[in-house]
Amino acid sequence: YLACRKELQMLSDLPAETRDGYRVQLLANIDHPGEVTSALAQGAEGVGLFRTEHLFLGRDTMPSEDEQFAVYVQVVQKTGGRCVVIRTLDYAGPSSPFFQSMHYEPNPFLGCRGIRLNLNFEEIFKVQIKAILRAGAYGKVKVMFPLISRVEDLRRAKDMLQQAQLELEQEGKKFDPRMEVGLLVEVPSAALTAELFAPEIDFYNIGTNDLVQYTLAVDRTSARVNPLHQALHPAVLRLVKNVIDAARNSGKCVAMCGEMAGEPLATLLLLGLGLQQFSAAAGSLPEIKKVIRAVTLREAREVAHRALQLSAPEEVRRYLEQEMKSRRLYF
Amino acid sequence: YLACRKELQMLSDLPAETRDGYRVQLLANIDHPGEVTSALAQGAEGVGLFRTEHLFLGRDTMPSEDEQFAVYVQVVQKTGGRCVVIRTLDYAGPSSPFFQSMHYEPNPFLGCRGIRLNLNFEEIFKVQIKAILRAGAYGKVKVMFPLISRVEDLRRAKDMLQQAQLELEQEGKKFDPRMEVGLLVEVPSAALTAELFAPEIDFYNIGTNDLVQYTLAVDRTSARVNPLHQALHPAVLRLVKNVIDAARNSGKCVAMCGEMAGEPLATLLLLGLGLQQFSAAAGSLPEIKKVIRAVTLREAREVAHRALQLSAPEEVRRYLEQEMKSRRLYF
Ligand SMILES: [Mg+2]
Ligand SMILES: [Mg+2]
Repeated sequence: YLACRKELQMLSDLPAETRDGYRVQLLANIDHPGEVTSALAQGAEGVGLFRTEHLFLGRDTMPSEDEQFAVYVQVVQKTGGRCVVIRTLDYAGPSSPFFQSMHYEPNPFLGCRGIRLNLNFEEIFKVQIKAILRAGAYGKVKVMFPLISRVEDLRRAKDMLQQAQLELEQEGKKFDPRMEVGLLVEVPSAALTAELFAPEIDFYNIGTNDLVQYTLAVDRTSARVNPLHQALHPAVLRLVKNVIDAARNSGKCVAMCGEMAGEPLATLLLLGLGLQQFSAAAGSLPEIKKVIRAVTLREAREVAHRALQLSAPEEVRRYLEQEMKSRRLYF
Repeated sequence: YLACRKELQMLSDLPAETRDGYRVQLLANIDHPGEVTSALAQGAEGVGLFRTEHLFLGRDTMPSEDEQFAVYVQVVQKTGGRCVVIRTLDYAGPSSPFFQSMHYEPNPFLGCRGIRLNLNFEEIFKVQIKAILRAGAYGKVKVMFPLISRVEDLRRAKDMLQQAQLELEQEGKKFDPRMEVGLLVEVPSAALTAELFAPEIDFYNIGTNDLVQYTLAVDRTSARVNPLHQALHPAVLRLVKNVIDAARNSGKCVAMCGEMAGEPLATLLLLGLGLQQFSAAAGSLPEIKKVIRAVTLREAREVAHRALQLSAPEEVRRYLEQEMKSRRLYF
């Protein structure tokens, strides 16, 4: 066990590249600035997903622009020039003091959350975007919008971004005027029509937790049905492939930040499909890197190709397990 | 207005076929046997969806096999030899006396409903299937399973069907030993992998209400987000096309029973995609038929082809409206 820990430790300084020199990026998902240092130590090359919910939860007053800015800049500074992807507020739960006009919804996961909430509370949204834009003046910050189901919502979010830039300019504050914009692909409709978003964005980021949830109509927080929440369902694999293909065809970068990205069993498959950035809990990055460094891109492509032929989640799982075992990649 | 009513009335005796003689079937969605007669008068050629929830709701005791059988046979007899598609219990709401062990679920639409509920309460499920099989001895009854997200669930449902047949045999009861089995395609994963189900089923039936709901992650019962519930979203059209293509390639019949099937604006499109059976509220059938009889299959195919090139729900809507207007098909 110790030997294994040590081996994974040593990996943290080596690049995430295949035996034949194909390089991908490993990034960390974080909730707090305090997680950055340890993430970098575990081999993260930046922050692939900074969730901003903690800034809003458990308090009575809205976090101000300056307060948010301070937190975002902290993340930027701790990452030392590496990229930081910030997701705008993605709230889906019981009502909070800021969203008082929110009605009770019988199915909150299918309700006013993510970008829908952002666009319903424009002032809260604009304050957050302004803080993110300002942090962008201090490093390589990108912004990403959650729960987009159609191009129109993304356009509206970008209009807000432009409005925020205008206001910052008028206020004479420093900000990044060319911040990269990402689409968080987590609604099946966005995955199915991924290519339609290309002209509007700089990068794709696949959020598999929600994508699986909607694609299979399974609330994974419900104990009675969560065994049905299978990321390796052939339908999910087809959607992931569709997004990656759309990114490739349009020359955009494509990342994944759902749990699937941190699951070593899926690494060969995702690598073979053409995923460029794996964003996951920092603790899982060394294992992901180990898998990547153990294979060639050609092998990974072969695995992806064969996995896509299979017709049941269990078959895909068994096949990937077998491919891992045959390479002595156990976890 | 009266002239228009009369015209639609006269239509009820004419076949639902295009000007160049391509014939489709119009069927009725019903909740009660009492609706059959009026549905037939409005031109329904059978029952495309008999919802069985009303048999279970608002009562303290389970409906017995004989009681259910009596209702199903009533529908069969009233349809006079035409086909009747019965959907097994699709319950998604607050707890009922029969499902006492059901826990509260935060998102019931993503929870234990449809086939998941059926398979969780096997005895209730088997009683219903036995009643359906017995009704099959008196007419052309087909059974259809709701909320299937993977092939394995369908197989389990079919195992129950076989078990029910075995029991009926032992009990010496009459039943249909070769009842047709349908897949209700309403979860995106089933639509995305439609061809994988072909060897297991006799027909496909696309349930657009839920399919749209999951594909777009929108609860249409929630006032705050239901404007996002757009059946003409390009992603939905692609899924519908995928199911129809899978049906064609496997030689299976394909129907649609969601609201989209009863929406005249979508008729040209669905006809052009290759839909064979339109199942809707009886009141909308005359209008659907009028559209079908006004065009050639070739024109419909052209409309479908062009609609699929469009990139926003609103564009699709405008395009279809324009095609309707240019043919003087106003509703
Ligand atoms: Mg999400
Ligand atoms: Mg349904």
